[in-house]
Amino acid sequence: MHAITIPEPGGPEALVWAEAPNPVPGEGEVLIDIAASAVNRADLLQRQGLYDPPPGMSPYPGLECAGRISALGPGVAGWAVGDEVCALLAGGGYAECVAVPIGQLLPVPAGLDLVQAAALPEVTCTVWSNVFMISELRPGQTLLVHGGSSGIGTMAVQLAVTLGSRVAVTAGSKEKLDRCAELGADILINYREQDFVAELRAATDGAGADVILDNMGARYLESNVRALATSGRLAVIGMQGGVKGELNLGALLRKRGSVTATSLRGRPPAEKAEIVAAVREHVWPLLADGRVRPVVDRTLPMWEAAQAHRVLDESKHVGKVVLTR
Amino acid sequence: MHAITIPEPGGPEALVWAEAPNPVPGEGEVLIDIAASAVNRADLLQRQGLYDPPPGMSPYPGLECAGRISALGPGVAGWAVGDEVCALLAGGGYAECVAVPIGQLLPVPAGLDLVQAAALPEVTCTVWSNVFMISELRPGQTLLVHGGSSGIGTMAVQLAVTLGSRVAVTAGSKEKLDRCAELGADILINYREQDFVAELRAATDGAGADVILDNMGARYLESNVRALATSGRLAVIGMQGGVKGELNLGALLRKRGSVTATSLRGRPPAEKAEIVAAVREHVWPLLADGRVRPVVDRTLPMWEAAQAHRVLDESKHVGKVVLTR
Repeated sequence: MHAITIPEPGGPEALVWAEAPNPVPGEGEVLIDIAASAVNRADLLQRQGLYDPPPGMSPYPGLECAGRISALGPGVAGWAVGDEVCALLAGGGYAECVAVPIGQLLPVPAGLDLVQAAALPEVTCTVWSNVFMISELRPGQTLLVHGGSSGIGTMAVQLAVTLGSRVAVTAGSKEKLDRCAELGADILINYREQDFVAELRAATDGAGADVILDNMGARYLESNVRALATSGRLAVIGMQGGVKGELNLGALLRKRGSVTATSLRGRPPAEKAEIVAAVREHVWPLLADGRVRPVVDRTLPMWEAAQAHRVLDESKHVGKVVLTR
Repeated sequence: MHAITIPEPGGPEALVWAEAPNPVPGEGEVLIDIAASAVNRADLLQRQGLYDPPPGMSPYPGLECAGRISALGPGVAGWAVGDEVCALLAGGGYAECVAVPIGQLLPVPAGLDLVQAAALPEVTCTVWSNVFMISELRPGQTLLVHGGSSGIGTMAVQLAVTLGSRVAVTAGSKEKLDRCAELGADILINYREQDFVAELRAATDGAGADVILDNMGARYLESNVRALATSGRLAVIGMQGGVKGELNLGALLRKRGSVTATSLRGRPPAEKAEIVAAVREHVWPLLADGRVRPVVDRTLPMWEAAQAHRVLDESKHVGKVVLTR
């Protein structure tokens, strides 16, 4: 098969479409003939040599894909060759095929095509696990989503609004905020021009956010704690603003708050399977009836992954950038 | 009645036994004729003017007491005048009587006297809410308790061991560590002489602690994150080592860890009642059958509260310092 390889870490040009060994599905795995994959920020770090794949996992980038099952490994039940699926991957999505444990498979939701389905696994699993499983956002509570127009952001906004929460977002332009508003966000904060803590407080009678989904890490840590409501939960899923920040434990204690930091890729397969099962139960029906939609900014051929990475580097996109074959 | 008052914040001598207005039980409250109270670190901060009581609460120190119900407010059912009880308080325990919502009452456990019962509400509610409710310690997991010989520590060790966990403690002397060992702790770390992260890792095959109960705050924040196991939970309940510390979100994310910071006193009565009910259900049977015991370092007359505060200031005690009338 072919895959995007990284002979030497570096800029987007480090991504090289090349021959690669065919993956073989192991016990409890299927082989997927990939129709589309999608780009995540973690892929940009991996390209730069800053985020190596977990031991034993595919060395190629790509944390999600959609396609058709082309072979079954030993001990697989419930899935058949030819099934259209999407999957959460530990790597290897930028390729013609990939082997994946069946616990990480999801059917393509009714009414969606494979390109749309490729945009779903990372955002649905990340948002569901962080906002709903870990941080337990409840109807009537307020969610603050940093980077509301990102792939993660657009899914977080839709899921939270659909399930009865009020949603605040930060983004870097009026155009991006308008898109968040269309998805249901009603507190719109331009982080280039406004103080998100002050804006959030003003919009919530001083209460703040019950849950914050954060991709900035250290740079926003102090502000995020100030933005939390009593019993608020800060879920850090990215560190675009640095790794080490000052935590005011006194402020956190007065709010009885929590800070969690997680990633999907490093989780063992059993934990991924638990999250995927919860997503299938809770999120898939909302996709099937159209109340929640994948947001695809654009598609590019997989062998032009370098161009796709440039799009994310420039942060001009809204939603997901999908790679197709 | 008489109560310990704080005419001017300051050292232990700021505590003055003086006439004070008689409390009146409101709707859903009872009046307790106090036989004993106990000292908490928060009282030392309050004495220094650093930790004011929540608005509307008693201005006198004392976050717990035991005694007999002497009057019922309107709408009280399930409790009678003469019942021996202990109670979690928002303040006012260093006094001859106090009014308290019935959700914060507990019966005196079978086989214990009022002095022992006065040593129970804060430690049982703090440990149960943090270690078991928030941090969800499970049988087979490892708990690290900083200050293992403190009132909180001695209860945390006993509860975790009794419910099937392995317990590590830090303390500042061999004598204190010996006491922790008698209570069931089996990883004993002298923080004056040893690196607790290294010792904990050595004793757990490198895994670390699933839950850490921390009273040091900023000073231990970085080390505590290093000491966490994968999916580990750090529960901060005190800040004896400072308020603001550096949090390595990258390290936390690699472990999929969490940091929570809470206190009991600031919680609204409904949350206190929920914790008290859980303690009565899960901890009280262990006290009644003697598997878990209150650890009382010494008793002092309530009007010698200043001396009791000096004991805590010097940290020579093991377990609780109780004030009696």
